[in-house]
Amino acid sequence: MSRLVLGVNCVREALRAHGSQVTEVLVERGSPTLDALARFAEARGVPVQWASRSTLDRLADGTRHQGAAARAPELAIASLDVVLEKPDVLVVALDEIQDPQNFGAIVRSAVAFGADAVMWGENASAPLTPSTFRASAGAIEHATLVRVRSLRGALEQCVSAACEVVALDGGASVTIDRAPLAGATVIVVGSEGKGLKKGVRAIATRVVSVPMSGRLDSLNASNAVAVALYECVRQRRVVSSK
Amino acid sequence: MSRLVLGVNCVREALRAHGSQVTEVLVERGSPTLDALARFAEARGVPVQWASRSTLDRLADGTRHQGAAARAPELAIASLDVVLEKPDVLVVALDEIQDPQNFGAIVRSAVAFGADAVMWGENASAPLTPSTFRASAGAIEHATLVRVRSLRGALEQCVSAACEVVALDGGASVTIDRAPLAGATVIVVGSEGKGLKKGVRAIATRVVSVPMSGRLDSLNASNAVAVALYECVRQRRVVSSK
Repeated sequence: MSRLVLGVNCVREALRAHGSQVTEVLVERGSPTLDALARFAEARGVPVQWASRSTLDRLADGTRHQGAAARAPELAIASLDVVLEKPDVLVVALDEIQDPQNFGAIVRSAVAFGADAVMWGENASAPLTPSTFRASAGAIEHATLVRVRSLRGALEQCVSAACEVVALDGGASVTIDRAPLAGATVIVVGSEGKGLKKGVRAIATRVVSVPMSGRLDSLNASNAVAVALYECVRQRRVVSSK
Repeated sequence: MSRLVLGVNCVREALRAHGSQVTEVLVERGSPTLDALARFAEARGVPVQWASRSTLDRLADGTRHQGAAARAPELAIASLDVVLEKPDVLVVALDEIQDPQNFGAIVRSAVAFGADAVMWGENASAPLTPSTFRASAGAIEHATLVRVRSLRGALEQCVSAACEVVALDGGASVTIDRAPLAGATVIVVGSEGKGLKKGVRAIATRVVSVPMSGRLDSLNASNAVAVALYECVRQRRVVSSK
């Protein structure tokens, strides 16, 4: 079964990630950006159909399409066992992130910083919808996704596999720059409103905050994850340059 | 003249930032969150009016209000001269950030990390609209805002005042962890689509990237700023603990 991808960035990243496994690209005529996207598809052997605005509107069913759509393969859902085999694995785990905007932005950061996977509990987070894809600016096409039945169970498995499970919490007294993040690491972020669940906090091997000035309670969840991933990359660069 | 503030977070932060200078709070009856907001206002000596959904809809004119509105003083616009007098000043400068969502998220990070001011060129960035306020989750109420006629002129003034003017650019070979950010610093971020303008790049004393894996061209602008501000705070903590 194929998956509908909408929007210029999403279609371009789907082509970059999946090449000729994208079975069809539909674009509206008449803009240099869309013309370039059509050439990008053709160069990868993907058939392009010129479509009218109304055809795309009907297909998109309310989601913003910017004149571009594609049929791409289903996103690959990886198993945690396989992900945990990577050396110094870096995973981002989402504890009840409901907002597709945040979910997508976090996936984008995860891909940009080279995290090995994004993991979430299947009953408790934003589903993989076109809004999520769009909020990731197409980054989700490059991501390794791990959807688990129970996030707690999965985090326990990570602890058993000798990962540091590092939960972000604005109230923690230890700041993230004091946590060792160069080895196998899982960064856990909670929902913006409710924060980390107790059960998840209890499993974490470290609970840390992003150092801030105190005039606000917390960062936006996607900004907190970007900072945490940056700190991982920074520490790993320091370690590898020693 | 008073300014209309809409939404629960924005009204609460306006009350925290301006206290009894908020002249009026309007809330809809019937939810614990809104009741708590009303008590929060009353405790600060601000008169509360219970309003109907339709009254608030009319007032909000299409912006999401979540059942809460307030009349707050105009946002204070500070002068760059005054801001530059602060020791080890930290300023975030926005080069044509058009998207209110990004603008607001950047203001939120700036306040959270304790930056001294957010600066932008008046003709080239997102205006101060209710959507910007909302995207900042109310943080803009705590921010020091510097709106300048020409961003280039203002950045030249910062260089003359011995600030490091550090421009973020995904293509730069020097990464931000190698730049000295503990002294007076201006972080400059360009628009997502077009990046930094040449004129701005030429004025910068350093052009740096956030270290990434390469599967994507760039981070979201607000995530890039969050990482840059975190790196400033991290370096300043290291310096002060020596």
